[in-house]
Amino acid sequence: MTHGVATVGIAGLGLIGGSLGLALRRSGFAERCLGWDLDAEVGQRAIELEVVAGTCDTLVDLAASVDLLIIATPTLSAEGVLNELLELARSGGPSPWITDVASVKGPLAKRALAAPAELAARFVPGHPIAGSELSGVSAADASLFAEHRAILTPLPCTDEQGLALVTRMWESTGAVVVCLSVEEHDAILAATSHLPHAVAFTLVNALAGSDSSSDIFRFAAGGFRDFTRIASSDPIMWRDIFVANSPALLEAIDAFTNQLGELRSAIESGDGPALELTFRAAKTARDDFASDLRARQRSKMAKGSG
Amino acid sequence: MTHGVATVGIAGLGLIGGSLGLALRRSGFAERCLGWDLDAEVGQRAIELEVVAGTCDTLVDLAASVDLLIIATPTLSAEGVLNELLELARSGGPSPWITDVASVKGPLAKRALAAPAELAARFVPGHPIAGSELSGVSAADASLFAEHRAILTPLPCTDEQGLALVTRMWESTGAVVVCLSVEEHDAILAATSHLPHAVAFTLVNALAGSDSSSDIFRFAAGGFRDFTRIASSDPIMWRDIFVANSPALLEAIDAFTNQLGELRSAIESGDGPALELTFRAAKTARDDFASDLRARQRSKMAKGSG
Repeated sequence: MTHGVATVGIAGLGLIGGSLGLALRRSGFAERCLGWDLDAEVGQRAIELEVVAGTCDTLVDLAASVDLLIIATPTLSAEGVLNELLELARSGGPSPWITDVASVKGPLAKRALAAPAELAARFVPGHPIAGSELSGVSAADASLFAEHRAILTPLPCTDEQGLALVTRMWESTGAVVVCLSVEEHDAILAATSHLPHAVAFTLVNALAGSDSSSDIFRFAAGGFRDFTRIASSDPIMWRDIFVANSPALLEAIDAFTNQLGELRSAIESGDGPALELTFRAAKTARDDFASDLRARQRSKMAKGSG
Repeated sequence: MTHGVATVGIAGLGLIGGSLGLALRRSGFAERCLGWDLDAEVGQRAIELEVVAGTCDTLVDLAASVDLLIIATPTLSAEGVLNELLELARSGGPSPWITDVASVKGPLAKRALAAPAELAARFVPGHPIAGSELSGVSAADASLFAEHRAILTPLPCTDEQGLALVTRMWESTGAVVVCLSVEEHDAILAATSHLPHAVAFTLVNALAGSDSSSDIFRFAAGGFRDFTRIASSDPIMWRDIFVANSPALLEAIDAFTNQLGELRSAIESGDGPALELTFRAAKTARDDFASDLRARQRSKMAKGSG
């Protein structure tokens, strides 16, 4: 494969970083993948799993050894890693292409825009919409991104060549690349992912905090379990996401709260027709969404078996 | 089986009424099941499926033919059916034992308490916590209630003999009978079932109503589908439940809204430690609940295969 790079570096060898290592080796986009992780044991495990060919001891070493560096650390540390890379380049050090996989784009974009434009030009912000209940490098999966969307949010200063390179990288994993503005990305993720998590965490806590919580959980059934599954997600990861995406998330929470207030009024006034209309609208929207999603998944399976 | 009755009558041959017919025939609790449904075709189908041995043309005929009558109509019509049966008894007509399966107990209890105590004594309010994505008599399943809870909410005037009879009826289906007060029942169901539905309907509508709704649904993935599955529930059924249980539901919505307001404040002030604490509490409560539920389900499977 000729349109890739000689060496890719992955900073942060978790589920996403590890899966990228496997996927890029399989696709031939990179001749070689190197890794770096704060935890040396994780790096060792990544080598054993053939996620990377080797590891570097420091981020600076990694930057000096690769053509494209992917920041795959947790959301909040991504900002610090990007900053370190930009400082390194500013002081005349190595300056590979940079991309990232963080769930929130605003803070990284802000950080890049504070750097000289010719340095920021080499950074292509990205976010693959893929994940798993599992985490860590041991759960790495070469096909994690296939038929999933990878969103890129290029900045006004982003170099076209870099954008094309990162686009090819994601396409080589089987992902479908979509470009959005930073603001669009953060608003859409707030609505489809961060708000549902906020609601699930709140629902479980509201029930757990009530006087009859032991009765409440005793009588809850499978539907409640499905509805609240996402409340079992990693608290640290979600703390970081909520802090990083607070403006868009606050807007989404306010829209939700207003809508719930309207429903509350209809319940209080016993307005049956308004309730029915509300539920019908939700059912239609939700059924349409589910049938779209089924079509997407069928397409993924068809391609997977072809 | 000797502790049952000769003839059970089922008014309303949907999923729950149909499943009860099959379960009671299988357990031997009833020598014979008769049915009545507003839709004669449904009655015909119930006979074909051997859910009931025969049907009556009217509710009065059914009441005159059975020892125990189960009101299994939709929640809001259950009130009218109970009223008709109490009027019938008051005017010297047949007076079988009566029970019901409605999701909200307050309105039926109120109706019963307005009748003379010796008539209301023959009514045992009940609610099996069981259901299915499917509906209608064709989805009837004799094992729908096995290892599920059946909640009974006896009134001060409820006859002990009637309570014992209805308890035996549910136990014969494999259900675990629990007695609660009417108020406890309605508050617990508001928290564990009605509030989650209110939240899911609202979430889908908030997203569908936003300016970028097509983008939002385009980027939502499987987690969102699972989280919003219950927004596809039957709008009429849920309208009725929300109207019938409005006092308890309003309280549950208010508790939820307050809790969401606190989360919103923590996000707005960027209070990472408070966010982490909130998410940790939710994760712990939810994980505990899920492991209890798995234990219950293992017990069900073990008994099923024994």
